[in-house]
Amino acid sequence: MIESLHSPHVVRVKALLSSKKDRTESKLFIAEGIQGVREALLIEGEVETLYLTKSGTERMNKAGIDLSAVNVVEVSEKVADAMSDAITSQGIVAICRMMIQGAETLETLAASHVIYLNEIQDPGNAGTILRTADAMGISAVVTSPGSVDFYSPKVVRSTAGSLWHIPVYSGIEISELRKSLPTHNVYLLDGAGDKSLFDVDFKNPAIWIFGNEARGLKEGTEDLKGATRISIAMPGKAESLNLAAAAAIVMHEISRGR
Amino acid sequence: MIESLHSPHVVRVKALLSSKKDRTESKLFIAEGIQGVREALLIEGEVETLYLTKSGTERMNKAGIDLSAVNVVEVSEKVADAMSDAITSQGIVAICRMMIQGAETLETLAASHVIYLNEIQDPGNAGTILRTADAMGISAVVTSPGSVDFYSPKVVRSTAGSLWHIPVYSGIEISELRKSLPTHNVYLLDGAGDKSLFDVDFKNPAIWIFGNEARGLKEGTEDLKGATRISIAMPGKAESLNLAAAAAIVMHEISRGR
Repeated sequence: MIESLHSPHVVRVKALLSSKKDRTESKLFIAEGIQGVREALLIEGEVETLYLTKSGTERMNKAGIDLSAVNVVEVSEKVADAMSDAITSQGIVAICRMMIQGAETLETLAASHVIYLNEIQDPGNAGTILRTADAMGISAVVTSPGSVDFYSPKVVRSTAGSLWHIPVYSGIEISELRKSLPTHNVYLLDGAGDKSLFDVDFKNPAIWIFGNEARGLKEGTEDLKGATRISIAMPGKAESLNLAAAAAIVMHEISRGR
Repeated sequence: MIESLHSPHVVRVKALLSSKKDRTESKLFIAEGIQGVREALLIEGEVETLYLTKSGTERMNKAGIDLSAVNVVEVSEKVADAMSDAITSQGIVAICRMMIQGAETLETLAASHVIYLNEIQDPGNAGTILRTADAMGISAVVTSPGSVDFYSPKVVRSTAGSLWHIPVYSGIEISELRKSLPTHNVYLLDGAGDKSLFDVDFKNPAIWIFGNEARGLKEGTEDLKGATRISIAMPGKAESLNLAAAAAIVMHEISRGR
């Protein structure tokens, strides 16, 4: 059992929690807690190392999770806390392998609605949108360069396990996505849009662009040529919707209308 | 201009930021930033004191906000940071008066759909749900005892100004709400519900109960007698939706179906 806070295991986990550079170079990231780790374990070879405290082990056993093929390392409660992004650990910490989707596979989404996140910054919003996309049966989520890292701990946690259910394409320019899916409609969520979400025909697959929470997409660029600005009806007094709330409304409509 | 970090103003603001007890006793709370404070100022007498830095004042002037009837106190950047819930302040900090809704006015919601939040804990979810309710023209949000304080800084911030648009009733038992609105349908959001959200008739006003993120409402209690469990269709692999995402989907349906 690892008990020393100076253990190289602790150093390694802390680095993967805090450094995007370390994650990107090693193609590894950290997942904590039973919900996420259980989903990760369903994918062969996804978990490189699983750190468990005594109570963490009990919880995994109680949930009926088979650990026979897993590289399990026992740790003390103190070490687990040091390895955790939260103040106290749940006693279950996994080093996982990134599931990197190559841009060459974008074409396989030819029959699917696709969510495109443009420069999304808030980790809670990002993770929640992925979770909702998973719930609504969306085939993939694509993010622009400059978006938050989906393998950072706060995003991983917010996905509530969905990170292992639905592919995420990172760092894809909208122009590249549009080239890969040339017959898709392109819709842009905009409070002052020309067309109501209620009037969209969902039978034809579309790219749905959700803009950065603070910055809008640049007008008049080639990237947005032929894109239709869609608005969600807002009869009340609020100026705008939280991005994850707006995305949930759109994805529910996609799911209903398909 | 207040420059000392030991000023009683700073002590007072910090107390209102951190202590629910202080807020409840004084019936005051803190709002920061231009979006919230602008909305607060639209209500006569709502802002007790407005602390502004030089740059905060410039931003208010630039936004065309009339400060002539407001008790403005100038503060240094350092004092504003000390008065802020965030790491650095936007230079705009207001002491606001709570807008307490008495339970005796619940009857006025007789023709309206009402959102009931049962033991909601997450401040981001709480604020986002209020913001969405405002956007969708919902008449009121009602919360149970044991819910997060809607006047705590993280919730106030997440409402993005909606706190001043739509009434919030706090600490109301579901039984009391049902007594005040006896002809309302009662719906409970439940992943394993009997009835689909798509099949609900929105013409009749209803109480929509959203449960605590971790704990469900107790089965078989008098409180839930005659309540229908409603499920949102989830064709994908996710186990459940984030509460604010689920609430947004429901409220959009209410808005559409009314």
